[in-house]
Amino acid sequence: MALIDPTLIDPTLIDPTVVASVEAMARRARAAGRELALASRAMKDQALLGMADALMENSDAVVRENLFDLELGAQRGLSAGLLDRLTLSPERIVGIVEAVRELAALADPVGAVVRGSTLPNGLRLRQVRVPMGVVGMVYEARPNVTVDAAGLGLKSGNAVILRGGSAAERTNRAIIGVLRDAVAGAGLPADAIQTIDQFGRDGVRALMRARGLVDLLVPRGGAELIQTVVREAQVPVIETGVGNCHVYVDGAANLDQAVRIVINSKVQRPSVCNAAETLLVDRAVAAEFLPRVLGELADLGVKFHVDAAAQALVPAGAQWEAARAVDWDTEYLDLELAVAVVDGLEGGVAHIQRHSSGHTEAICTQDLGRAQEFTDRIDSAVVMVNASTRFTDGGQFGLGAEIGISTQKLHARGPMGLAELTSTKWICVGNGQVREA
Amino acid sequence: MALIDPTLIDPTLIDPTVVASVEAMARRARAAGRELALASRAMKDQALLGMADALMENSDAVVRENLFDLELGAQRGLSAGLLDRLTLSPERIVGIVEAVRELAALADPVGAVVRGSTLPNGLRLRQVRVPMGVVGMVYEARPNVTVDAAGLGLKSGNAVILRGGSAAERTNRAIIGVLRDAVAGAGLPADAIQTIDQFGRDGVRALMRARGLVDLLVPRGGAELIQTVVREAQVPVIETGVGNCHVYVDGAANLDQAVRIVINSKVQRPSVCNAAETLLVDRAVAAEFLPRVLGELADLGVKFHVDAAAQALVPAGAQWEAARAVDWDTEYLDLELAVAVVDGLEGGVAHIQRHSSGHTEAICTQDLGRAQEFTDRIDSAVVMVNASTRFTDGGQFGLGAEIGISTQKLHARGPMGLAELTSTKWICVGNGQVREA
Repeated sequence: MALIDPTLIDPTLIDPTVVASVEAMARRARAAGRELALASRAMKDQALLGMADALMENSDAVVRENLFDLELGAQRGLSAGLLDRLTLSPERIVGIVEAVRELAALADPVGAVVRGSTLPNGLRLRQVRVPMGVVGMVYEARPNVTVDAAGLGLKSGNAVILRGGSAAERTNRAIIGVLRDAVAGAGLPADAIQTIDQFGRDGVRALMRARGLVDLLVPRGGAELIQTVVREAQVPVIETGVGNCHVYVDGAANLDQAVRIVINSKVQRPSVCNAAETLLVDRAVAAEFLPRVLGELADLGVKFHVDAAAQALVPAGAQWEAARAVDWDTEYLDLELAVAVVDGLEGGVAHIQRHSSGHTEAICTQDLGRAQEFTDRIDSAVVMVNASTRFTDGGQFGLGAEIGISTQKLHARGPMGLAELTSTKWICVGNGQVREA
Repeated sequence: MALIDPTLIDPTLIDPTVVASVEAMARRARAAGRELALASRAMKDQALLGMADALMENSDAVVRENLFDLELGAQRGLSAGLLDRLTLSPERIVGIVEAVRELAALADPVGAVVRGSTLPNGLRLRQVRVPMGVVGMVYEARPNVTVDAAGLGLKSGNAVILRGGSAAERTNRAIIGVLRDAVAGAGLPADAIQTIDQFGRDGVRALMRARGLVDLLVPRGGAELIQTVVREAQVPVIETGVGNCHVYVDGAANLDQAVRIVINSKVQRPSVCNAAETLLVDRAVAAEFLPRVLGELADLGVKFHVDAAAQALVPAGAQWEAARAVDWDTEYLDLELAVAVVDGLEGGVAHIQRHSSGHTEAICTQDLGRAQEFTDRIDSAVVMVNASTRFTDGGQFGLGAEIGISTQKLHARGPMGLAELTSTKWICVGNGQVREA
């Protein structure tokens, strides 16, 4: 037996009892996932409706636990924004439950045939959607994500292992207890929904290294959380959500439309990843467009970080400062906007290629050629033409609920719904075919 | 300046000049990829045909360089199998060139519309295939993969960075020089095809950590190479090729057919990943089936690793030994076969769930229910019913050339062709829509 805790010497070491516990949970998740993969849509939908009913019935108990987390959070000095995200009022629970019921109404992605053919030798080939298996979710202080992830996971036939963070630990434990009972009550394995919150940070690190036991890990939250998971994980990861979104207003834009689009992209809900963070304006229309749009934005409380060319065009009374280099890469998530004047489409594209996080970029133009060039050259998950960046959303796209917005290119890009939580397998049926060469 | 090479102290450090060089190459690849992404199919096909012609014209020079690599390999004591894989004869070059010409005839995956709709608010939404961007390939002693990867990459609009291993360094350098000239001659950027072979192992490690510069890394080769890349990479990876493939012969099999399928799966080309490594036989037919199939396999030179129940059924004169635990997880890639008697479908599925690498598994049965249960419960990239495991192949599936066979669930599963080397983006065209809620 070691006399000194080895994790104190080497910070890359993880408490071995935590590793063993997390791996044991992942094995139970694997077994539960195998059952879920074979469950009919009817059974899964029944479980979802049971989860919704159980959450309603236990709403008071969940709210009570949430009050403990909120009190502790306030003592620890969590920001008002974090405390708001953490709050589960009875009204919010109704909304969350409604979303679970809507999941039951969505088509089952599992078993859908993606493509298929009969080969020249008579083999009947089809590629079929199957669950991923075991999906890990790492997020912070958002108890609504606990329900979303459990519901989306169950509908897509996956077992989920959740890490909801210490700030929401009591709330999440209460929710997960309710959901597990409901799943078991519907005849499906309770281990389809598990939490590793009790293991703290070592639990996350064990989960990130559980190669062969976790099929997909989705971090959801701030840039730092996501970068940590991407760097350290040895299991497949999908990056979500960092959105340094741009709106480029072209010389050929309808400027009335462009004003509405810029305002909506920045102001309608500034705290989310599909809100715009940088406005780029074609030099050809800067003198006409900028005073007007910045004036309206300033009236709505927006502060500006402006480049040299734009400074003369900021209307009197607006709050602004000169943009520093870091502003072009900043996701404010607040009523702040970086503003630059660029040399036409070429300048706008070059700026975006240098600074975009690959989430959503928009162009305002009435010129078809420039619209095409922008959509061809901008390499982001979503490229908007004459529309608000705020439309990048699974619900808005008609895909149903989403588990996050992928900003990577592997597997899923943009809003991730049920289909993105599945893999495929090839099924090939013959009558004795063998290969000649 | 450090007095001691820091990489000697900490093995996780990489020579910083190599990191800088690899990152500079990746930036050139990014720029080349942006040009390639906009290239028309006609231009890309012209470049492919130019690559094919140039390889034919320079066949003698490539063969000459290959002889140097072969001589050095023989001196270093490479195995006969490795030396064979390393060999490029004029005939083999003709075959490789033919494959490049066939690529030109395949449809362009870039620009294909995957799905789309017009939303209730009039937004026109479409999801379009786009190149990944920069794709890294790490492989060993297979100069044919150099041409395959460059060709598949170019057709799918990706810039490739290749690491072909020290054993094939001169051959690969010659091939890549020829291909780069041909690409430039067709008016596309030569940096679409680059090699990091000159940087040795540190080059691979720098490539694996080039976050934001490499969109996809595909290791292709032995299990050790693949595991190293998966563990160490901080860029997105697709695992390929480890195939511990099983054939399960059910009590309801057509035994004549099953004999042919087992023999073809094991013997037709034992050195490749889709060859069978383990035979599982339903106890109900073991006494009838095993002596017969093992007799025929023994005549073809196959050695057996048999469990206790099967030992009495091995025909006289066959080479066999008692299976050890490790045999059930071994990819022999040779004329060796692990053999076990199992208790029906349940026993076969349980064995496969414990030992499969998720590549290809086959069932031989005439019972529809058991065939369905097997295809439902076996979680592998390809599940065969009454057909040889050897059919798991992009060409056999009618998908065209393949860059490898993915055994992971994220992004691509099974044979990876051109479509699997692409991502998608959403393009959303409106006329001033903004979001209300």
